[in-house]
Amino acid sequence: MKIKGTFLDEISHDIPHQNWGRKEWDLDFDYMKKVGINTVVLIRSGYRKWLTYPSQILMEQERAYQSSVDLVQMFLELSSKHGMDFYFGLYDSGRYWVNGDFQGELDLNKALIEEVWEKYGQMPAFKGWYISQECSRKTGSIIKMYAGLGEHCKAVSGSLTTLISPYIDGIKNISQYKPETSRTLGVSLKRHEEDWNEIFDGIKNAVDIVAFQDGHIDFDELDDFLQINKQLADRHGIRSWTNSESFDRDMPIKFLPIKWEKLLMKLKAAERAGMEQAITFEFSHFMSPQSAYLQAGHLYNRYKEYLDQLK
Amino acid sequence: MKIKGTFLDEISHDIPHQNWGRKEWDLDFDYMKKVGINTVVLIRSGYRKWLTYPSQILMEQERAYQSSVDLVQMFLELSSKHGMDFYFGLYDSGRYWVNGDFQGELDLNKALIEEVWEKYGQMPAFKGWYISQECSRKTGSIIKMYAGLGEHCKAVSGSLTTLISPYIDGIKNISQYKPETSRTLGVSLKRHEEDWNEIFDGIKNAVDIVAFQDGHIDFDELDDFLQINKQLADRHGIRSWTNSESFDRDMPIKFLPIKWEKLLMKLKAAERAGMEQAITFEFSHFMSPQSAYLQAGHLYNRYKEYLDQLK
Amino acid sequence: MKIKGTFLDEISHDIPHQNWGRKEWDLDFDYMKKVGINTVVLIRSGYRKWLTYPSQILMEQERAYQSSVDLVQMFLELSSKHGMDFYFGLYDSGRYWVNGDFQGELDLNKALIEEVWEKYGQMPAFKGWYISQECSRKTGSIIKMYAGLGEHCKAVSGSLTTLISPYIDGIKNISQYKPETSRTLGVSLKRHEEDWNEIFDGIKNAVDIVAFQDGHIDFDELDDFLQINKQLADRHGIRSWTNSESFDRDMPIKFLPIKWEKLLMKLKAAERAGMEQAITFEFSHFMSPQSAYLQAGHLYNRYKEYLDQLK
Repeated sequence: MKIKGTFLDEISHDIPHQNWGRKEWDLDFDYMKKVGINTVVLIRSGYRKWLTYPSQILMEQERAYQSSVDLVQMFLELSSKHGMDFYFGLYDSGRYWVNGDFQGELDLNKALIEEVWEKYGQMPAFKGWYISQECSRKTGSIIKMYAGLGEHCKAVSGSLTTLISPYIDGIKNISQYKPETSRTLGVSLKRHEEDWNEIFDGIKNAVDIVAFQDGHIDFDELDDFLQINKQLADRHGIRSWTNSESFDRDMPIKFLPIKWEKLLMKLKAAERAGMEQAITFEFSHFMSPQSAYLQAGHLYNRYKEYLDQLK
Repeated sequence: MKIKGTFLDEISHDIPHQNWGRKEWDLDFDYMKKVGINTVVLIRSGYRKWLTYPSQILMEQERAYQSSVDLVQMFLELSSKHGMDFYFGLYDSGRYWVNGDFQGELDLNKALIEEVWEKYGQMPAFKGWYISQECSRKTGSIIKMYAGLGEHCKAVSGSLTTLISPYIDGIKNISQYKPETSRTLGVSLKRHEEDWNEIFDGIKNAVDIVAFQDGHIDFDELDDFLQINKQLADRHGIRSWTNSESFDRDMPIKFLPIKWEKLLMKLKAAERAGMEQAITFEFSHFMSPQSAYLQAGHLYNRYKEYLDQLK
Repeated sequence: MKIKGTFLDEISHDIPHQNWGRKEWDLDFDYMKKVGINTVVLIRSGYRKWLTYPSQILMEQERAYQSSVDLVQMFLELSSKHGMDFYFGLYDSGRYWVNGDFQGELDLNKALIEEVWEKYGQMPAFKGWYISQECSRKTGSIIKMYAGLGEHCKAVSGSLTTLISPYIDGIKNISQYKPETSRTLGVSLKRHEEDWNEIFDGIKNAVDIVAFQDGHIDFDELDDFLQINKQLADRHGIRSWTNSESFDRDMPIKFLPIKWEKLLMKLKAAERAGMEQAITFEFSHFMSPQSAYLQAGHLYNRYKEYLDQLK
């Protein structure tokens, strides 16, 4: 099981920024390429008032802050240079999951999709859309929103690939703003299966790939959940990637690089489940030799040794 | 808007220590100088039992721990070497804001001011006093204490410059020992104005410069609060700097370097408000190329690019 | 007072992993040796389902995860290479202190001790056992468990040295998963003395060395507690080391390197108390020049300067 893609954590909202300029990003794409990554997924183009590019729509409708750099342009250019596929992550208002305004989120993003396609659609690395709204359960109008967003992405762009990356409502589904790392009860396998069977049925024509996050459950539960995820997706004709998180959810310090043995266990579970490939959240903080977290560079080396063993 | 000064976070009490010796501090002053910093402000000369220099008064009256290094001496020497102005930060007992003993804090610091001036007053880099007791509201006898401290500093030292750096009781005024990063309600602009109008009126003859911390409010509120701060200070003949914090208050990990875009927004707001210059808390952890946090070195580079654009 | 030993934090459960391979560990032992460390203590051979070596017993009885690397073998080889004594840390199920099953912990570890001795006992660096179960008070059947474990280690291995490293139930005895760093009340000196007098009396034939952790009390209390610890151990014929923690318990970010002045104060208190030597938890994250935390390398340099002054 190889990691073929990574998220780009811009706009980050909970992981301290590395303050990289174009030079550092260029080098990072090079590091990614060297370990076989061919896909980069912008985690979101905007979060509340913070933007990755100067979006007229968001600056007007959301009173978002003018971004001083156009990261979307830069990422697309670097993707071309390094032969990467770029997936554009939609806007997250931070509202839909607070007050249940799924319709507002959908409408706003439909306009954004048009703006983005108009602005960047001709760039050769633009290969897909990432529907950035995360969920773990059949919450509110999530099906209608996912379907609407995916369909609009496809309608506007000549049916480019669409991706979602939900999480499992497991024992480690804990706010990053809480000190604990786990709770006693997570969602049951049965309930998870019921919810996602229904969600997949409702979005199967709008979403091409699902990459469940693999970090919210115990390591014991990996096989059960990953296999259910794969079977459910297969049943509805959706492709399966695994989003193998490269940060460690078990630590009092939130968001430092994961121990290699844990990542290895998760990759092997994904292999047993028959996943097509892995992507990770995310390379630049947690696996890059130039990360501010030096544990990341060592993780990169451990992963390279693993790749060498696969040969 | 340029950053012309930085705090020196010794004695730190909430940010892990970098364990630098004289060599590293010397290099850091050099890095500061290269980006135009000409003022260093000792955040406090002592905090509870921890001291920056072997103060007889504090070792006797507070049973403070003997410090093995005289950081005040070292900082004064390095300031001379690098052409910096040094501001001496007063002692913080940690008590006045707990049990309201403002008079005790005042009396103790008056004696300290005399000890310090006796010991270091002849050193050429000694250019000012930083009244290190922070506040955000008209709390207890804060006016009397600020006025008393500032007047005594001036009386003893031939009226050297005095500086305070209060904070705004905003939505991000959250203890660093709590996991959250914000709360629902902060102080209203009106209440903030009333409080500080009264405080400034009471301390205007004792305090020369106010440098409000800019990190406790939302980015949306910057213009409103910074402009009020500037107008209030002007009204009372107090000079205005901005204390543009270079750590990120929005992150689950407390006290890592800020994202450059956020710092840039704050500097621009200070410019619009007409602030004289910026200082920051603080260079050595959050902006220095040799910081243990590598994000800081990249922030340094981003800030240098910004300076180049100003030319 | 010199630091002659360090724990090896594998299996770590609360400090993010550095993802080192054999090359980095080899270099780290070299760094240790250069500052006089001659003893390495494996903090635990397993914690819940995570293992340092592929233990048949733990994989069968605890359904522990197969470890991909044999760290015990590697640490023993590196210890030989660098002339270090290796102490093997027992298994911590994570259960005994939750449901009080001290007997189960004892039985399981007895079998483990036999497995380990069979597997690694002939390796020349294997010089002692570390009874990894930590406690601070006379809790449950702690005496019976310590005695049983120590006696079994000795019976199996021709009476190799046994070590425990308890903590003091002081004001900083706070879960690492809580945001606070201290509490109002800790154990009284008198109660601590009563508990440990009884514990030592019950384990004196099974435990050779006690190395109390020195981080859970206030710096003011160091002399009182360290002297009591030394006297109690002397009374029962147990040798005294100090476990001088090299991370800072006073910081909102849990587990970053300690400020040198604090470590120095603790070493000096141990010297005054007459401790035989110091060990630390732990070198590789908090004192190593190659630590991911760059503060650690500076701490290493400060400690080297201190060693130079002792000459």
